[in-house]
Amino acid sequence: MPSTTPLKTPDLVTFEGGDEGEWVIRSIKTCAGESIPAAAALRVGMNKADSGAVAWRLSAFTSNLRYTTAQEAAMLTAKQEGLGRPEAVYAALIPIRKSPQWWALAQDERREIYEERSRHTTIGAGYLPQIARRLHHCRDLGEPFDFLTWFEFAPEHESEFDHMLSRMRASEEWQYVDREVDIRLSRSL
Amino acid sequence: MPSTTPLKTPDLVTFEGGDEGEWVIRSIKTCAGESIPAAAALRVGMNKADSGAVAWRLSAFTSNLRYTTAQEAAMLTAKQEGLGRPEAVYAALIPIRKSPQWWALAQDERREIYEERSRHTTIGAGYLPQIARRLHHCRDLGEPFDFLTWFEFAPEHESEFDHMLSRMRASEEWQYVDREVDIRLSRSL
Repeated sequence: MPSTTPLKTPDLVTFEGGDEGEWVIRSIKTCAGESIPAAAALRVGMNKADSGAVAWRLSAFTSNLRYTTAQEAAMLTAKQEGLGRPEAVYAALIPIRKSPQWWALAQDERREIYEERSRHTTIGAGYLPQIARRLHHCRDLGEPFDFLTWFEFAPEHESEFDHMLSRMRASEEWQYVDREVDIRLSRSL
Repeated sequence: MPSTTPLKTPDLVTFEGGDEGEWVIRSIKTCAGESIPAAAALRVGMNKADSGAVAWRLSAFTSNLRYTTAQEAAMLTAKQEGLGRPEAVYAALIPIRKSPQWWALAQDERREIYEERSRHTTIGAGYLPQIARRLHHCRDLGEPFDFLTWFEFAPEHESEFDHMLSRMRASEEWQYVDREVDIRLSRSL
């Protein structure tokens, strides 16, 4: 039985914008749809309950692969590095929501747009291992976004990260993104 | 842009086994793994909060298609009938959990097992429109099962329903099912 991805159970991750946290918020840019309130810092919590008053709180879970093939997963696994690298003191949290039209598409239609026409995995792979990332799902939790993607990289790679995002945002897939916020962070000293 | 399925947002559905409810529990059969406590009746709630003491409570959400292609979705839409038909006074609630090995597979590997080798959609379609069903997802909620499938049918079609289940359970896909409970119900008078 082929198996290229590690065994894991879903983890709920909570991102809280507020006055304090292990990440300093450098900027919040609204790319599409409604913005979110300003905040000075971000706290990231794993599998824990709400922790009091914050400017905003976004929760989402890691999950199984939704579009990635075994061959693509093996390629990504070979190239990527994990979160928490000492040099990766910059991060980005990018919440996005896709349109009802996207979610009404069947699996093969979404895969076709995602990879065969938009090259989502292929583009992202070109920035490995410099840009590490973890995808979290939240549409099924009734949250205001569908996905929260977390990226970590060294400051000298931020221009490459911006280049990757500009290619993604120009793709056919992004025509289905109706809300997107780009939050840039640096690790608190 | 092709679109064969209706636009919808996820709905959280709660199934509560207890003393009262709009469905009488006729039987609870454990097919794999741990059982669930006995209960006399089932209450089905849409998008509502917990409602007090019950023998068990299972929650799950409807979601977008995960394996179904546009062509398959169009075929199913043409053949199927909805829930709530007056003659469909029998129902079944079948919670299942799949193994970590299943969830570690990539999307193309799971699709291959699900349809090309196990004919899940093809088998199910053969029992439409008599057997109406709605799939609910719950793995990502940290629930004890991964899926809750709800079926409704007229009493004279229960033997066909059993035949469908026996074919599903003999499939390669079902080798990845490590917990399954089969709850049969009839509408309360």
